[in-house]
Amino acid sequence: MDQPISFRIAANEGNARAGVLRTRRGEIETPVFMPVGTAGSVKGIRFEELENEIDAQIILGNTYHLWLRPGIETIRACGGLHRFIGWDRALLTDSGGFQVWSLGELRKISEEGTEFRSHVDGSLRFLSPEVSMEVQAALGSDIVMAFDECAPGKTPHDDARTSMELTARWARRSRDRFDALQRDEADTGRTLVEGLSGAQALFGIVQGATHHDLRRESLDRKLEIGFDGYAIGGLSVGEEKNVMWDVAGEIAPLMPADLPRYLMGVGTPEDLLEGVARGVDMFDCVLPTRNGRNGQAFTSRGKLNIKNTQWASDQRPLDETCRCSVCRRHSRAYLRHLYLSGEMLSSISLTHHNLAFFLDTMRRVRQSIRSGKFTQFRREFTEMVNSGVE
Amino acid sequence: MDQPISFRIAANEGNARAGVLRTRRGEIETPVFMPVGTAGSVKGIRFEELENEIDAQIILGNTYHLWLRPGIETIRACGGLHRFIGWDRALLTDSGGFQVWSLGELRKISEEGTEFRSHVDGSLRFLSPEVSMEVQAALGSDIVMAFDECAPGKTPHDDARTSMELTARWARRSRDRFDALQRDEADTGRTLVEGLSGAQALFGIVQGATHHDLRRESLDRKLEIGFDGYAIGGLSVGEEKNVMWDVAGEIAPLMPADLPRYLMGVGTPEDLLEGVARGVDMFDCVLPTRNGRNGQAFTSRGKLNIKNTQWASDQRPLDETCRCSVCRRHSRAYLRHLYLSGEMLSSISLTHHNLAFFLDTMRRVRQSIRSGKFTQFRREFTEMVNSGVE
Repeated sequence: MDQPISFRIAANEGNARAGVLRTRRGEIETPVFMPVGTAGSVKGIRFEELENEIDAQIILGNTYHLWLRPGIETIRACGGLHRFIGWDRALLTDSGGFQVWSLGELRKISEEGTEFRSHVDGSLRFLSPEVSMEVQAALGSDIVMAFDECAPGKTPHDDARTSMELTARWARRSRDRFDALQRDEADTGRTLVEGLSGAQALFGIVQGATHHDLRRESLDRKLEIGFDGYAIGGLSVGEEKNVMWDVAGEIAPLMPADLPRYLMGVGTPEDLLEGVARGVDMFDCVLPTRNGRNGQAFTSRGKLNIKNTQWASDQRPLDETCRCSVCRRHSRAYLRHLYLSGEMLSSISLTHHNLAFFLDTMRRVRQSIRSGKFTQFRREFTEMVNSGVE
Repeated sequence: MDQPISFRIAANEGNARAGVLRTRRGEIETPVFMPVGTAGSVKGIRFEELENEIDAQIILGNTYHLWLRPGIETIRACGGLHRFIGWDRALLTDSGGFQVWSLGELRKISEEGTEFRSHVDGSLRFLSPEVSMEVQAALGSDIVMAFDECAPGKTPHDDARTSMELTARWARRSRDRFDALQRDEADTGRTLVEGLSGAQALFGIVQGATHHDLRRESLDRKLEIGFDGYAIGGLSVGEEKNVMWDVAGEIAPLMPADLPRYLMGVGTPEDLLEGVARGVDMFDCVLPTRNGRNGQAFTSRGKLNIKNTQWASDQRPLDETCRCSVCRRHSRAYLRHLYLSGEMLSSISLTHHNLAFFLDTMRRVRQSIRSGKFTQFRREFTEMVNSGVE
């Protein structure tokens, strides 16, 4: 029987892989960075730019945010998330688990799910594996994430085990409800394309904080259930970088080689290369958009803070090696002026450049793996990034 | 001797004219609406969009804002305003007179000029006809406005006369300093093109509040000095609409028929048609950008407030007859969601649509004049706008 997605590896170099993830809404070359469109918009950029110059093949949406506002009745009435926002390419939706966890004191976790107060209107809401699957079916995203509990970096072993086991039971419930919803045709995004089932894909999430035994057990329990792809959650949330890479470096290669692997919420451009080197295929992070709004550009020579006085009359682009439309047109001096003047074009321009830089970096990563030069590319890229902006 | 600009009327209908204004940075079909780029950016839109889809042939910059920040040393160091902001097409700069007037209590006007406190850093600054010309030469804009004093709509005759006479003396001083600066090659935007002098053009401004005799006298005194084009200032600042049109309707046709006429700071789409009917060629206004940021769209059926609950699940575009990229892609329901969620894409999208609508309206105005159907177009357009959004 056809699967919801297909994944083909075209080249390997060490643990790094370059491949093609085929979804019901187009092909995605991997490794891929997915821009984050939390509330149905990648902040500060038009869809035309994402499609054309940035050429994003897939973006993220967020169950938590979209469920609270505008709500699934509205999105269902508008024909699902793709049609609601006007985006025909692939969409992955996060389950809401991470956002609810981020609420901290405002949420109460039980076996059944998570009770919390909406940040929009203060109303009491309840999110569970079943609700998350129902919302994601109404959104009609192409890749659905199982509902999990996030145990952050420094969680002690006992607590991390409790959490990991809850996540495993929630994964089972996610799978069951998801399958029923697909049978019931609740998925608003269903589209038949040759060789695929037309259904949503469901990814399982490995938790276990920084404890390797728990991470391995978490993966085993997800494999028992069976998913279309596997994600590593609960990293980049407070632990040291080397600890994060130890965990990801052990777990990613243990995941099925013929399915996509997704490292959630990571990271800087250097992090993307480190993840790829450990066998990760998919990444997402708010850094390019959020930091762009705060006046920070990612460049081939590291981070550039546009506020700095040293750029006041500097006519060079953000990145002298970048060919994006911002770097072709605007100087550091002008972008600094826009930032200091509170002009929206500052956020728009830095967001645009940052996304262009992230996606261009991944394009170069893929090419380097396909030509057997990833190790060399990674070394040169990292050296350059660490050399600092002049 | 070649002039800085040339202006050719291609068609007339009543007082309305369609023509081509040739500047050292390209041809501008008139009547034209000029998007406002106060601090060197048309708020909320990329220059690529202005050039391509919106197809703006000329935009405004503001002397007051750019002088205070980033300052003319920076702009001169970056090669003038065109190069600083990355815009090769025509630029018109306002003189700063209106902005200083807007400061109200914070400014002190004397024969010499205007003393005021900077809104950026609170420093005491002094703007005069000479300083304004010097700043505009450093900016290198293609059309420079004389430094004037704005007497708003309800100014009594005596005060309006005093102000009008001061504006006349300032116009003389603007002309003198401007000419000296051109001789001294202070203009950073100088560009030689066939048939034009390569210098900046200087426009005079007619003031006199709502008093027809003062308006006529103000025009006579500007004509004595001699300018490359003539503007009507001090309208749309508190007076009734019919009073504004009485003044503009008398003064515009008295201006030289072979030079461009510019009605400053006006207006709504309906206002543009009223101005054109009275012989005006150029307009500017912050309405499409400012109202776009505040959730208001201009449409062929009048204003649409995107906040309204009635659009919550409305899948129609802002304007069903509009072919702009926002209307082709996004529904009222989605744009409302973006506004309520505080997403930047709300401002970006409504600004984009509004500018597209204003410039498309002017394109249709020009076509209608050229085909002798302006009267009909004006009647149909006005009826439709007044019919209300459904």
